[in-house]
Parts: sequence; C-alpha cells; structure tokens
Amino acid sequence: MARINDNYLKLKAGYLFPEIARRVNAFTEANPEAAKKLIRCGIGDVTEPLPEACRKAMHEAVDEQGNRDTFKGYGPEQGYAFLREAIADNAYAGLNVSADEIFVSDGSKCDSGNILDIFGPGNTIAITDPVYPVYVDTNVMVGNTGDADESGSYEGLVYMPCTAENDFVPAIPEEKVDLVYLCYPNNPTGATATKEQLKAWVDYAKKNDAILFYDAAYEAFVTDPDVPRSIYEIEGARDCAIEFRSFSKNGGFTGVRCAYTVVPKELTGKTADGTDQAIHPLWNRRQSTKFNGASYIVQKGAAAVFSPEGKEQVSALIEHYLGNAKLLREACEAAGLKVFGGVNAPYIWVQCPEGVDSWGMFDRMLEKVNVVITPGAGFGAAGEGYFRISAFNSRENAEEVCRRIGEELG
Amino acid sequence: MARINDNYLKLKAGYLFPEIARRVNAFTEANPEAAKKLIRCGIGDVTEPLPEACRKAMHEAVDEQGNRDTFKGYGPEQGYAFLREAIADNAYAGLNVSADEIFVSDGSKCDSGNILDIFGPGNTIAITDPVYPVYVDTNVMVGNTGDADESGSYEGLVYMPCTAENDFVPAIPEEKVDLVYLCYPNNPTGATATKEQLKAWVDYAKKNDAILFYDAAYEAFVTDPDVPRSIYEIEGARDCAIEFRSFSKNGGFTGVRCAYTVVPKELTGKTADGTDQAIHPLWNRRQSTKFNGASYIVQKGAAAVFSPEGKEQVSALIEHYLGNAKLLREACEAAGLKVFGGVNAPYIWVQCPEGVDSWGMFDRMLEKVNVVITPGAGFGAAGEGYFRISAFNSRENAEEVCRRIGEELG
Repeated sequence: MARINDNYLKLKAGYLFPEIARRVNAFTEANPEAAKKLIRCGIGDVTEPLPEACRKAMHEAVDEQGNRDTFKGYGPEQGYAFLREAIADNAYAGLNVSADEIFVSDGSKCDSGNILDIFGPGNTIAITDPVYPVYVDTNVMVGNTGDADESGSYEGLVYMPCTAENDFVPAIPEEKVDLVYLCYPNNPTGATATKEQLKAWVDYAKKNDAILFYDAAYEAFVTDPDVPRSIYEIEGARDCAIEFRSFSKNGGFTGVRCAYTVVPKELTGKTADGTDQAIHPLWNRRQSTKFNGASYIVQKGAAAVFSPEGKEQVSALIEHYLGNAKLLREACEAAGLKVFGGVNAPYIWVQCPEGVDSWGMFDRMLEKVNVVITPGAGFGAAGEGYFRISAFNSRENAEEVCRRIGEELG
Repeated sequence: MARINDNYLKLKAGYLFPEIARRVNAFTEANPEAAKKLIRCGIGDVTEPLPEACRKAMHEAVDEQGNRDTFKGYGPEQGYAFLREAIADNAYAGLNVSADEIFVSDGSKCDSGNILDIFGPGNTIAITDPVYPVYVDTNVMVGNTGDADESGSYEGLVYMPCTAENDFVPAIPEEKVDLVYLCYPNNPTGATATKEQLKAWVDYAKKNDAILFYDAAYEAFVTDPDVPRSIYEIEGARDCAIEFRSFSKNGGFTGVRCAYTVVPKELTGKTADGTDQAIHPLWNRRQSTKFNGASYIVQKGAAAVFSPEGKEQVSALIEHYLGNAKLLREACEAAGLKVFGGVNAPYIWVQCPEGVDSWGMFDRMLEKVNVVITPGAGFGAAGEGYFRISAFNSRENAEEVCRRIGEELG
C-alpha cells in the first residue's frame, strides 16, 4: 500500500494568502463600488514591463528555435555557459565566484526549497521570525520539524525573533544550529544587514560547521555602498554559505522564471561518519538528476539583463520601485506611523498603531483606505503588530495610496 | 554541524553519458577525419525546428510582457487555466480528466523526480529493467534503496526485467509493491503496452493499494488506434495512477521546457495510521510551496500545440521522426539484426549480434559506422545485449546512418 509523506499533514493550510483573498472577496461583495478603487500592495510581485533588452533577446531566441541550424534542444542542467559567465562577471565581479559555481534554475522558490534534498535528517534549522514562509514549510515537508503550536510555530525549529529592538537582524543563537536561513534585504521587513552583522554569522557558521542559506533575491535594491549585496563580500563566506539570487526582482522575471544558486567549491558538510563532503557535487548531482535546465529562451532573456541596455533598463526599474517606496515611507511617517525598511528594499514594514493587531490593520486598510496590505502575523509570530506594504506598483497607484493614507490615517 | 544526505553517496556516478562522451572524445582525437562524419543517434533529443504556431504564440507573449496592461507576473503554480483547459480538452478528450487535475511544470524529469516528495519512507518500489535512470536515481536519493551491487542494481528495488521474451512489458510481480514506474511507449525499448497488459497493472494496483507512475512522455508517437496513449484509457486507473506527460517530444520543447502531471482527485494513499489520504491536495501543496509555475511565455507556446496550426505542425514532426524510425528499423533488419520498437515510438531497440555486448556494439558503431548509439547496459542490467538508436534526427542523417549500417554491418 502506497504510503504518503506524513509530514505534509503537519503543514498549516497556506492560511495567509487564502485568508487575504477571503477577506478581499467579502469586502468586494459587500462594497462593490469601493472595491473598484482597491489598490493591491500585498503580494510582492512586480508590475512594470519587462526590460526591452530582455524582450529583444527572447524574440531572437524564439527565432533561433525556428531554424534547425540554431535550434536548441536539451541544454546543460546547470545553465548555459553564456549565462553562468555573465552572472560571474557582472553579479559577482570582484567576488571570486566562478561560472561553474553558479547553477541557473527556474526560480529561487524552487532552489530554496530543493536545497534541502542534499541535506540529511538530524540538522537543527534556524530561521528568522518573521520569515518567508517557504523556508519553514519546506523544512516541515522533509521532516525537520515536529508539529505546529497555536501560533503556527513548529516544534524543533529555532526561531530568531527580528523586531525593532534588534533592527530586524537576529542575534546569534546561543544554541548550536546547523543550517541557518538569512535573507537581506529582507522579505518581509525590508531590513538590511551590515557587513559586521554578516561577519558575525560567518564566524558563527565556521565555528560550528553550520551552513548559511543566504537569500539575496532583493540585492538589486541596495543602493547604499556600505550595505552588502552578497554574502561573499564577507571573508570566509565561501567556506560556509550558499547564496540564492533571482532575476525576478531586478529584471522583473516573476512570470518569466529565472534564478540561480551559488555553491562555492570549498563548502563542505558532514557525512554520517563525520567525514567532510563537498556540497558542490551533491547539488550538481541533484540538479542533473531532477532538473533539466531553465528554458533556453528565458536564459537568453536573463543574460540580456547584463547587457549595457539591460543594465540601464533594470536601473530605471529599481529607481522606479524605490521611488514608490520613498513616497510610501514618507506618507506613513506623516500619518504618525512608525516605519522600517523601504530604503534599500522594496518593502515597507510598518508598526500598527497602538491597540490594533496586524489583521485588524489589514481590515482597516481594506475598509477605510481600500488598499490591500499583508498583515505581519502572516510571516510568523514576531510579525504581529506590523504590516507590510509592497512598493511594486505604478507611480500613479503608489501616489494614490499615499494620498489615501494621509486622508484616512493621518 | 551540517549533515549531508548520505543517500547521495550510494549513487553510481552518472556513468552512462559521461562514459559515452569519453569514448567519443577518445575516438575523435585518434581519428579527426572520421570524427567529422560522426552522426549522433544517442541521446533522445529532438532536432527539428519548433512549430511555427508555438513560436508565434511565444513572440506574442514576449510582446505582452512589454506592456504594463498585459504584463504577467507570478502565475498560478499549477499552470494557467488557458493551458490546463487546453490539455484537458485536447490531450484528454473523452477521458474524464478535468483541468484542475492537470499540473503544468517545466519538465517531466522534474515531475517524475519530485513526485517522491509526497510519498513516505517504507514504500516498496518496482521499476522495469531496462529503465530511464531518473526513476532509479531519485529513489536512491530519498533513501528508498540500499547500496548498488556490481551490476549497478540497488538493494531494495524490485526490478522487473523486460526482454524479448515478454515483449518488453513486465510480468506482474509476485511480491506486493507500493509504487510502480511504467513508461509506454517505452524509453529505451520503444515497446508499447496493450490495453490488456495495462488493465492487469491497474487491477494489481487496486488490489494492493499500489500507485502507478505512468510516464507517457512519448504518447504522441502512437499511431496505432489499439495502442493506449494514456493510462486513463483503462477503467479504474483514476483510482490508482498518476500520469506524466510532456511537450518535449510532441512540440519539440526539450529546450523550451514544459510538461504536466495528472493527479486524479479519486487517488489516495495511506497515512501512517492507515487512513486514506487524497494525493491531489498533497501534490498541489508541494507544487505551490516548491515551484512557482512554468514561464508564462512557455505556457503560451505550449497551448499553441493544440491550435489547428499547431496540431498540423506537430503531426508533421511526428511523421518525420517516425519516418526516420521506419528507415532505421528496416536498415537494421536488412543488416540481419533483430529489431524491436520504432513503430509507435522514436526509439529502435536492437539486439547485439551474437558474441558482442552492448558496449562492444557501441565501440563497433562508433569506429566502423561512425554513429553514436546508446548501449543497452546503460539503462540497467537487463539492457545488456541490446542497443538503442534514436530516430530524432534529420532525414538526411537518418538515411546516411541507414546507408552506413548496410555497408558496414550488412
């Protein structure tokens, strides 16, 4: 008899976004006129057109597929050399990351979930709270946790609270952990980590033979030269860190699908008998066996992000979204709210006014401001008392959201 | 200390294709002139241009991404309704498969590997021998096997030999197994299964609460109306089978990347306490959490396979490759070789001449015929004594291979 993976039964229903949808639908039915004015600042999805350079490259790639001399069938599972080299030369210029340490994929969500395939049972996992739910759920699925308690926290995970008190960068845990998820610029708080803070994590990892999973999906939003964009800016990180990056939030590839994972050759884990085992060949084997490469057409589009035109067009996109973030920050501040993030990041993390919890704030924003935000509690227990506003929008919408915040909350 | 997944250390190095590459390289260095004439009939990759209907749809989709009103960001993880509905209406016309039972992905290799995520430990796995190596390796990775023996067979797997004696369709095993991999039209043997044979498997699965993983990646090559193209043509299969299909071998999407998996809502597995658990919500949760949907551009291209023009163009492609298969079959037969497959399938499975093993035949084909084939032993112990010729080629190349076979082997 076919036995299912019982760990899946521990998963809380994906309650955040369905619950948001339920409340939005109920509001829309009850208030059809107001619903027409709804502006969505909830999900972190880009809204502006794909850069022309990327579209041009994809058109050319589609045409290549129409000619048997330039037709491309199965590509390398790790990604085409043209893209791996472009990433090494551009995204990692000066950081000593070689093209064959870069594994191209169809998305960071996939990579950050699939990475657990190559790690064994018996690891202690540390995650920040609040956190991108995929890190938690994928650990539940492979059996790295026990059951969830009423707040939605799973037994066996080490939660590292991120609050205004620690600037949303967690303290080094006192216990020994084996795998640590870090994400900077952070989703959902918009916080960034300093080099000193990341250095402390690298030191901790090296001392404890731990591995850092560093999610840098939002690195394109870093404009401050003192803020690190990659974990590999920290000395020693090649011995202890895997980095995830994406074309979703620089080139706007959320619907096009392309990302990559860096696995340095120095990085090792331990086998059951305590022997060092390089991680690079394990991930290579995983990707070769369970993945067949990202679409050739998509990879051509991604490489164009690094062309001179592509760089200019991506800069303009980033500037646009950061401009929205600045306006939204200022509007919230002017309304007397306490605001975090939104400077080197596309998310604004706002403290709820005294006496209102994060779902209460969700309802208030929906009903009074006609704006959909994301309640902080949806990202973990420590997110209670905050809400997230996404800057991914048109300027017109961002300005309208600001106007309404001033009018209704000010 | 970060513990790796020790099961990966049980994996034999991916010895088949690297070993082929090594021998081809050695030959090329020693015989640079002859190497110029090499024709590759090894890997099962399409060679002909992508259908015009698909390219047209992808061009349009790229243009849509350039306009904020038609721009598509994150899509549904399960695939866009336009594609799921087109698949249900066309690929499953009359078979009672609904659009929401179809999960669109970026490849069948991914799906057939990832499916194990939702099944627990403790399942007994049956695979055919010879077999597509991904089924075996992904079971090794999750710990469903012990170590490999000298022939490359893993302890704990139930191997079902497929030979000329059973027409390459395995006998129902005498022991009780829980998960069964079947692939028809078969890779590598090119065999097809009859409705009666599949009915016996469905009956076995229902009797034993087993689940069939039915890989129908090559269904487009079935021209004989009596040969089933889907496991769901068999009564009762919705209770016991998951089907994998792909756009790789009909539309030629090996480099474009699109596939799908059908999980009927009736299908259940057992939890640890023996309760029935529907599989559909588990796979939905897996895909929602660890996948972010196939590229919108690619999905538009895939949907065009089902347009009137797309259907015509795909038919022409299939006719082309089947035409090659027919020529290759006839040439091998004329050369006195015993030949299987290649009728409702793009692979010809050829018995090696008396006294030559499959690597010996590989060398002979390389050196005397200047054609790269795949030795049967690379697909499992029962593949010894056979070799596979792929019909994926230009007509010109296929004809030249036939000429050389006649000249050198006849």
